[in-house]
Amino acid sequence: MLGNCIENVRKNVPLVHNITNYVTVNDVANILLACGGSPIMSAEPEDVEDITSICGGLNINIGTLTKSSIEGMFRAGRKANELNHPILLDPVGAGASALRTNTAVQLMEQLKLTVIRGNISEIKTLALGSGTTKGVDADVADVVTEETLDQAVQFVKQFAAKSGSIVAITGAIDLVSDGEKCYVIRNGRPEMGKITGTGCQLSGMMTAFLVANPDNHLEAAAAAVCTMGLAGEIGWSRMQEGDGNSTYRNRIIDAVYNMDVSTLDKGAKYEVR
Amino acid sequence: MLGNCIENVRKNVPLVHNITNYVTVNDVANILLACGGSPIMSAEPEDVEDITSICGGLNINIGTLTKSSIEGMFRAGRKANELNHPILLDPVGAGASALRTNTAVQLMEQLKLTVIRGNISEIKTLALGSGTTKGVDADVADVVTEETLDQAVQFVKQFAAKSGSIVAITGAIDLVSDGEKCYVIRNGRPEMGKITGTGCQLSGMMTAFLVANPDNHLEAAAAAVCTMGLAGEIGWSRMQEGDGNSTYRNRIIDAVYNMDVSTLDKGAKYEVR
Amino acid sequence: MLGNCIENVRKNVPLVHNITNYVTVNDVANILLACGGSPIMSAEPEDVEDITSICGGLNINIGTLTKSSIEGMFRAGRKANELNHPILLDPVGAGASALRTNTAVQLMEQLKLTVIRGNISEIKTLALGSGTTKGVDADVADVVTEETLDQAVQFVKQFAAKSGSIVAITGAIDLVSDGEKCYVIRNGRPEMGKITGTGCQLSGMMTAFLVANPDNHLEAAAAAVCTMGLAGEIGWSRMQEGDGNSTYRNRIIDAVYNMDVSTLDKGAKYEVR
Repeated sequence: MLGNCIENVRKNVPLVHNITNYVTVNDVANILLACGGSPIMSAEPEDVEDITSICGGLNINIGTLTKSSIEGMFRAGRKANELNHPILLDPVGAGASALRTNTAVQLMEQLKLTVIRGNISEIKTLALGSGTTKGVDADVADVVTEETLDQAVQFVKQFAAKSGSIVAITGAIDLVSDGEKCYVIRNGRPEMGKITGTGCQLSGMMTAFLVANPDNHLEAAAAAVCTMGLAGEIGWSRMQEGDGNSTYRNRIIDAVYNMDVSTLDKGAKYEVR
Repeated sequence: MLGNCIENVRKNVPLVHNITNYVTVNDVANILLACGGSPIMSAEPEDVEDITSICGGLNINIGTLTKSSIEGMFRAGRKANELNHPILLDPVGAGASALRTNTAVQLMEQLKLTVIRGNISEIKTLALGSGTTKGVDADVADVVTEETLDQAVQFVKQFAAKSGSIVAITGAIDLVSDGEKCYVIRNGRPEMGKITGTGCQLSGMMTAFLVANPDNHLEAAAAAVCTMGLAGEIGWSRMQEGDGNSTYRNRIIDAVYNMDVSTLDKGAKYEVR
Repeated sequence: MLGNCIENVRKNVPLVHNITNYVTVNDVANILLACGGSPIMSAEPEDVEDITSICGGLNINIGTLTKSSIEGMFRAGRKANELNHPILLDPVGAGASALRTNTAVQLMEQLKLTVIRGNISEIKTLALGSGTTKGVDADVADVVTEETLDQAVQFVKQFAAKSGSIVAITGAIDLVSDGEKCYVIRNGRPEMGKITGTGCQLSGMMTAFLVANPDNHLEAAAAAVCTMGLAGEIGWSRMQEGDGNSTYRNRIIDAVYNMDVSTLDKGAKYEVR
């Protein structure tokens, strides 16, 4: 059951090294604390190897990459691979600029990534852009809906198999696959898209789930997606007249803070294909 | 009517490229989403041209400038000018350091800026500091009140005419002028000054209004000022005992999220001089 | 009485220059405004001297240090020393990486610091790491509890005397010493540890207290610690079912915003040893 995955986070208090964008970094730190993990941020190339060494996992988010932080991503990533720590890549904006696309593709090629998590457009960019994933058919619709679901499931399985990473595509319907199985998840609310950084928050939290569930990364990644989506539902149910996206942001993190095993087990809406 | 301007933002969902400070960047992103726009942040010189090319407008805020981000501002700005995208300059701290003053003045001289938005002291610094605006009488009081209003209106009109940009001075009374007309706006609350970044948020939001209202930049800028001030009034009306500036920040963004055409049209307090 | 210290902040509106991490910077700015101060952030080496010159004090936080910001810390620090401004050092993560430890130790050695504020582990790292403090017995427990209190008080007094700075160790029990006297403070709540940056916020606010109380830095530092802890208690008392760490963050800053002299005087729980 997915509930065990969050219980393991709360028991183990995994320390997560985040190289992440400055837009949403505070929310990433607070959601990591909310789920039971502990965050450290460091992007300076001369600092990252020491920091990643004392952590259990690494979350790389290219949202506001700089030349210096890119170097930090590779140095931290190589060290994390050496230490066999899980690494998550969030390729924010891949496809929107050459620097982002190339950085994400090179990170994918040079590092062993446990999970790649992004929206369908970012993931398609990676599937097309990389030599190692050549042959993946990325001619899939840009939104995952019930109509395009079969095709999207096939795409995510194929890309996961080729890349050797668990691939998580989040959107109206979320998909998490290791190449064999694919979790199809229907938690969440459309209003979450009106908050900056719910994807970044999920990536940070998912890294904690990976660290705390070393023997079951696929289920851990799916559990993190369900936790985020369910928190979005619970948070929304607490909204009052006049509340908007800023209050909603707080309520979602609050809902993660209060999430327990049985709430998650009862509220998670998924099927495995 | 100003209400049309926010309606156009909600219809067009303008993508805004922000090169902005790391202090208030999360609130800038959330208020852009709240008003109906969509934010992207990028300051790395090698990334900004691609990013600005896929956006509709550029918001340059020098609040925590670095040598690298300054280069990013100029490269993004030149590309935005090439593409005829509106550019807003928020000269945070101009007058407080040589680097800030010089950067703001050079941005003003080398780029075609659609709007310059700051407080009276920052705007006076720009009026004095720039060769192109030599001759503007910046001997105006440091606070815009009913007593100093006539003089301030004259100053803002003169500076707008000389600089070729719409100039928005925000404070107790807000002024927005294109050199001919001047909107005198009396929305807002003094407690907004106890929140970090209400000015930065306004600049981000105003850029979205400029993009979505290409044929009426002056009215769009004034509408953004009224939206922010009115949201400050609505947010304040929802404050409860024990609430303070952190909650107020959320309530203002929430009020923008819920702002509709008729609320803005009824609540906007302005005259045109 | 400690209440006078916050009254002086509200009267004098001290301008504080912060070189701080991008994770918690927004909350640092808002808590500085909440307590009656005014924040400026600047880390660019070419900007910091001008900025620190117009401020009353300097808050150096190494949480997300970069090579460039480290240079900024030293340049700002030397200028602040020249101008006799109080400087606070928050050695975030000292002990976690060589770069952080070395940077903190060098800042301590090359600058005259008014206050060093950190958790017990960071402070122990500084006590061990520095030549100037050689001989301090840092063999103290890693948590300050009633059981380890006597030993910890002795340690903080000894380190304060050797370093020439006021030393503030915050945790379950907080200690603030100038080498002679030691404030033992029992405000606060354990749930504050589930919010990112309550320590960073305290450092920012404490710097404002130092600036506004130039003749009584020890009492000012203790007053800031009591204010933060008491705000944590008041904020917690306003929590409702379903609230979590994100809302708690807002309520703490709100409680600082509403803190008055008599509330602080009545609520502060401390003894002097």
